[in-house]
Amino acid sequence: MRVIGIDPGLRNLGWGVIEMEGSRLRHVANGILHSEGKDLARRLLVLHEGLTAVIATHAPQAAAVEQTFVNKDAVATLKLGQARGIALLAPAQAGLEVGEYAPNAIKKTVVGVGHADKVQVQHMVRHQLPGVTFEGPDAADALAIAICHAFHLQSAARMNAAQLSRAALGTSQRRRA
Amino acid sequence: MRVIGIDPGLRNLGWGVIEMEGSRLRHVANGILHSEGKDLARRLLVLHEGLTAVIATHAPQAAAVEQTFVNKDAVATLKLGQARGIALLAPAQAGLEVGEYAPNAIKKTVVGVGHADKVQVQHMVRHQLPGVTFEGPDAADALAIAICHAFHLQSAARMNAAQLSRAALGTSQRRRA
Repeated sequence: MRVIGIDPGLRNLGWGVIEMEGSRLRHVANGILHSEGKDLARRLLVLHEGLTAVIATHAPQAAAVEQTFVNKDAVATLKLGQARGIALLAPAQAGLEVGEYAPNAIKKTVVGVGHADKVQVQHMVRHQLPGVTFEGPDAADALAIAICHAFHLQSAARMNAAQLSRAALGTSQRRRA
Repeated sequence: MRVIGIDPGLRNLGWGVIEMEGSRLRHVANGILHSEGKDLARRLLVLHEGLTAVIATHAPQAAAVEQTFVNKDAVATLKLGQARGIALLAPAQAGLEVGEYAPNAIKKTVVGVGHADKVQVQHMVRHQLPGVTFEGPDAADALAIAICHAFHLQSAARMNAAQLSRAALGTSQRRRA
């Protein structure tokens, strides 16, 4: 199964695609989409076309986007929101379900602690994806998001499998909501 | 010339299309696109598909989007930003230039004062577009945005025409930056 992680941003939008076989992860590709200039609609168009092309090229079956907001000011948060709208739309248009994870949840899953710094996150991404090189920090963050989503999909699949086998053995179990 | 105005919002996205012939305005259509539920990516997809269909149906040649941010909190601003990203993307994908106006600029253009309330704005929209009925307040706001953009395009066209005629008379004039 292929998973794309997206770290949204108006100037730099990071993306990373990984492959999951059983419990093993493999790096597929990563990159950063850039947009500049005063014409906001055109910048969003550039990001949307870039991300749509990335999804078409690498054909992920699942997607996840970081759930950030900037605390600086409303203008910065609005800008990020606009880029994030594109980051959510493009995979949805490709028919993918899109997971969302808060930065702390991503760090907790990938590094083990919610307050890990960027260096620790990149270290663990390199550990999970041997031989990987990043186009930049935003691409490394995007790979961390993809890894986080892959782990969550994996444990959800294991729980389903365990429930199915218990059901096959004739024991009934009520699903947690 | 046809102009679409868009009042972005995640739950309710207002749109309004008007036609400008010389200095006369005519109402074409207005409506509100709704999105609900927990799946944010799918909500944005619904808004994008709806707005893309509206643009395809009414074929505007220009577009404008309100430049708002919510002062309440970062979460609300991020939500609005995501919807606004879609509102900017859809017309850009149709090859339209997208104008942006702050709420006060829209009120100032349509009503004459920047601190006008919703009732005053709707009154002036009805005055400019005789016989119009609104699908709701967000659609009325969207028509106000379209009217604001139409007026700005009109005065820009007049300034260009005046400059051209002066140039034809042999008087040279330096364009303001």
